Amino acid sequence: MRVRNVKNADELILKYPSIVIQNPSEYKGNWKKYFNNDNPIYVEIGMGKGQFIIKNALLNKDINYIGIEKEKSIVYKALNKVLDTNDKGIDNLVILNFDAANILDIFEDNEVDKIYLNFSDPWPKTRHEKRRLTGPIIFNNILKILNGDLEFKSDNRKLFEYSIMQFNNLGLNILELSLDLHKDNPNVISTEYEDKFVAMNMPIYYVKIKKGE
Amino acid sequence: MRVRNVKNADELILKYPSIVIQNPSEYKGNWKKYFNNDNPIYVEIGMGKGQFIIKNALLNKDINYIGIEKEKSIVYKALNKVLDTNDKGIDNLVILNFDAANILDIFEDNEVDKIYLNFSDPWPKTRHEKRRLTGPIIFNNILKILNGDLEFKSDNRKLFEYSIMQFNNLGLNILELSLDLHKDNPNVISTEYEDKFVAMNMPIYYVKIKKGE
Repeated sequence: MRVRNVKNADELILKYPSIVIQNPSEYKGNWKKYFNNDNPIYVEIGMGKGQFIIKNALLNKDINYIGIEKEKSIVYKALNKVLDTNDKGIDNLVILNFDAANILDIFEDNEVDKIYLNFSDPWPKTRHEKRRLTGPIIFNNILKILNGDLEFKSDNRKLFEYSIMQFNNLGLNILELSLDLHKDNPNVISTEYEDKFVAMNMPIYYVKIKKGE
Repeated sequence: MRVRNVKNADELILKYPSIVIQNPSEYKGNWKKYFNNDNPIYVEIGMGKGQFIIKNALLNKDINYIGIEKEKSIVYKALNKVLDTNDKGIDNLVILNFDAANILDIFEDNEVDKIYLNFSDPWPKTRHEKRRLTGPIIFNNILKILNGDLEFKSDNRKLFEYSIMQFNNLGLNILELSLDLHKDNPNVISTEYEDKFVAMNMPIYYVKIKKGE
């Protein structure tokens, strides 16, 4: 499916405020209350079309998932995928149409138990380093809201090398590392984008880090 | 050329005691005195047939190179390669037929300015972890003798992943990282083994670390 025009996307998104939360900053510090349980909060920053987080949410009903996506046209696709799965939405999954650069506006320090960064935009030019999710500015905020570990996957060699060096320089503990994730673990839950790369036999780079004490 | 028998190797090695040092522990703490200059000491642990360190020594006459190799039959090949280059040997290069497990017997703490680990034996079985050069036992000793940085190259994905995690967990600073060294730097000085892998279009993994203060 594709977005025919912005109006279609806006209309559908506004029709499902319990799936695509309209005012996420109101829940800052209170996401467990929002989900009405005490389960851990897992966040995917850059959820894309949603395959990864939807599969995770369906498999792990005892975890609350929050998918963040900046682009409204992509949120529209993810919303449709949620509705295809269940026309009432998925209890333990919400979507935020939100720019991760402002993530401190929607989460308190240490409010998130796990963060996934899947195939983040590499922003290859040095002058765009600050836009990278693992760059010095945004990643500093990501670490603030995190109390637990973070999993990072990429097909982009340069972004992965850069990110490993960032994690190392920040004193973060590398818990797992694979330079060919699907060879090591063919049953891993993948994104739509990832499926294409794996079909082309390209390696997927993976690292899991723990926030230092 | 190949070793026809051990006697040939022994004879040639004993004939060139200024190239293959017979009693390296005598020079512990005094390698600069041995070279009769104040130039930095660079060590390759596992020098193999010698292409990498010989090329480096010829290019950088203001650095003293020490190549270490455990296998006498390989030392014999490296010695022949040195003699092919210069039948009097190379002023700033010596070879030690020595097991790096005992490296503290031949170097004082902080005596070495740079260490190269090129295509070290992966010892893939967990029960052989302690034999890996980047494993907990030998690598601890390697760090003791080092005052500067260390460059590690490998074609072995599992050894490389393991080593990155080791370096990170030891709090070492990653200065450079490439998951496809020859794409990033086609002019890098290679080993004989490395040339074969590059010819097959296999990626060479590379990392440069700095010993923490």
